[in-house]
Amino acid sequence: MDNVYDKIIQLGLMLSSEMKLDNLFKKIVETSREIANSEGGSLYIKRKNVLDFIISQNEVLEKKFNLKGEVLFKPYPIALSKENIAGYAALTGEIVNIKDAYKIPKDKPYRFLDSFDKKFEYKTRSILAIPLKDREGTILGILQLINGRNKSGQVVHYDKGTVSLIQTLASFAAISLKNAILAKDLKDSNLSTIYRLVKASEYKDPDTAHHIERMSNYSKIISKYMGFDEEFQDLMLYASPMHDIGKIGVPDRILTKPGPLTVEERKVMNKHTIMGSDILKNPDNPIIEMARTIALTHHERWDGEGYPKKLKGEEIPIEGRICAIADVFDALSVKRVYKKEWPMQEVLTYIERERGKQFCPYTVDGFFKGLEEILEIKAKYKE
Amino acid sequence: MDNVYDKIIQLGLMLSSEMKLDNLFKKIVETSREIANSEGGSLYIKRKNVLDFIISQNEVLEKKFNLKGEVLFKPYPIALSKENIAGYAALTGEIVNIKDAYKIPKDKPYRFLDSFDKKFEYKTRSILAIPLKDREGTILGILQLINGRNKSGQVVHYDKGTVSLIQTLASFAAISLKNAILAKDLKDSNLSTIYRLVKASEYKDPDTAHHIERMSNYSKIISKYMGFDEEFQDLMLYASPMHDIGKIGVPDRILTKPGPLTVEERKVMNKHTIMGSDILKNPDNPIIEMARTIALTHHERWDGEGYPKKLKGEEIPIEGRICAIADVFDALSVKRVYKKEWPMQEVLTYIERERGKQFCPYTVDGFFKGLEEILEIKAKYKE
Repeated sequence: MDNVYDKIIQLGLMLSSEMKLDNLFKKIVETSREIANSEGGSLYIKRKNVLDFIISQNEVLEKKFNLKGEVLFKPYPIALSKENIAGYAALTGEIVNIKDAYKIPKDKPYRFLDSFDKKFEYKTRSILAIPLKDREGTILGILQLINGRNKSGQVVHYDKGTVSLIQTLASFAAISLKNAILAKDLKDSNLSTIYRLVKASEYKDPDTAHHIERMSNYSKIISKYMGFDEEFQDLMLYASPMHDIGKIGVPDRILTKPGPLTVEERKVMNKHTIMGSDILKNPDNPIIEMARTIALTHHERWDGEGYPKKLKGEEIPIEGRICAIADVFDALSVKRVYKKEWPMQEVLTYIERERGKQFCPYTVDGFFKGLEEILEIKAKYKE
Repeated sequence: MDNVYDKIIQLGLMLSSEMKLDNLFKKIVETSREIANSEGGSLYIKRKNVLDFIISQNEVLEKKFNLKGEVLFKPYPIALSKENIAGYAALTGEIVNIKDAYKIPKDKPYRFLDSFDKKFEYKTRSILAIPLKDREGTILGILQLINGRNKSGQVVHYDKGTVSLIQTLASFAAISLKNAILAKDLKDSNLSTIYRLVKASEYKDPDTAHHIERMSNYSKIISKYMGFDEEFQDLMLYASPMHDIGKIGVPDRILTKPGPLTVEERKVMNKHTIMGSDILKNPDNPIIEMARTIALTHHERWDGEGYPKKLKGEEIPIEGRICAIADVFDALSVKRVYKKEWPMQEVLTYIERERGKQFCPYTVDGFFKGLEEILEIKAKYKE
């Protein structure tokens, strides 16, 4: 048995050392299968009304279909219902331990879904489904094992000792999953609050309902296709909504003037870049720091003809260059009170034509590489 | 050895089930001591230039001084320096495993600090210090054991097998600590962004530099002393800064008028409550939801003479009643452009006198119970 414990100890060490959550989950399913000597194992994550397959491994089918690695099929969601086994475990929080999937007593609320077996000509027998719970008892997902065997290779019922060991591995998966969820929830809430407060600041001069959502997602996508890492991409997402925050300092009579602005009024309006940078001065976190740079530089031009500082080329911080395209693309491609939206092809031609003039060429490249995702965002946040 | 493994397995289960981080850390130190048969154990958390004691246990001293539980002394920070053992492990990431604290070879950079031994007439011999690392290899703290004994009770050097088991427990501590740090960082960053954006929205009519920091902390403290749980307290902290967000909708000429407002202008100004609630409509997270309620109701009065809806008593949501006191207390106790600050005693007399008139009596009680903490915040964010 020492070998079993060593595996758990090793996995315990991985909890704080494995960088990628996916790798950790893979290893948790693998180790669970080894400890419980099981042909198959999977990990589901609970999401609203479904359970999402995250990991699915089956050594028999891998051999049969000569698969490398564990990708047996494209993960698909299964219904979160008491009528199937994983669903029952996920809804009740009970461990389900079944000796023979085809001989489930009639009085049980759940039954075995044999579509998987039929599809792959496989024979499921014993099943163990253990809920992943967080500290409050909320169920986050399911760790499931299939066809545990004894030393002679016969499929048998999962015994008490094995179940208790697998529970510890389920606990490892639960804490890791919980933390990922927590971090994502906090980030989502943060972003949503940023959007809300920026919109509040634009109360007197709203662009369009979803300009900042689109523009900040475009900025993220462009930076992604330019090769920046996820941390930078997230910063772009969170910081870029504040690009026009300085408009709060522009007097009502200029900000909300119906007709075209005079030269003097335009000068005051253009100061929103400097006022934005002033509002965001002394940044105390990386989001505000980047927002400050963006507020100041998102109207600079690659050819040096922008404002407020007439910076040129790589003198302009990259985050400002990215937002410049994202902002203009959205302004052109969406209807505003005073103008129609441009046809998409004209917008794209404009951006291509301004490559190396208004816009940084590398950023234009990133824009076109990410165009498909950009158009998805445009569709998602349409006016 | 099975017993040892069972302990680790049990602790692994606690990772996702133990509600309180402190209890988990206690249990990790306890289990480490049991596994390594050690007289003492402690957990330090790294913070800027110091290591903070979080848990400290020593069975010999507990017996000697007849202590209940593990509180041996008030936790104090120790210098984060390569010259002491925990500091060395925390700075280099190396495991330090010492046979005899009083016979550390001269060529080692660290030495044993014997002040603890002298103070408690204790004799430290063997020491094991294991760094807690996160996935990026950043060192978060130290798990330290003292005086491991063999079966005959003699203090001995920590052997390789024991060190490796304790490493797994250190990994448990590291992932739990990392998650707590991550959650706190995200919350701090979120709050700081809220403060920043709310201040931006008040660009044309800044109250005083730190009104919203003070006011939101006061709101949190009052709710704490009224018995609300931490989740509610945090919501108060994050949501209350937005109480005046509706002022963004008040025209410049009224908002920044130097003299007193006319009756008509006052009516427009008072609409900031309704405009705030409008800006925050369709809340998509609990912070914005509470902020909306607060924006609408923080000028209502317990006696029904407030605005905009002349709500009375418990018709006024509790978060609005709490912010009403926090807002008025700050307005009175701080100098503004047009008025001096009131002497503290007069402010307190005013709040007590308005108990059951302007203010909810339960909230006034919470205010006075939390007064000490409130005054600390006032001192921290002074103008």
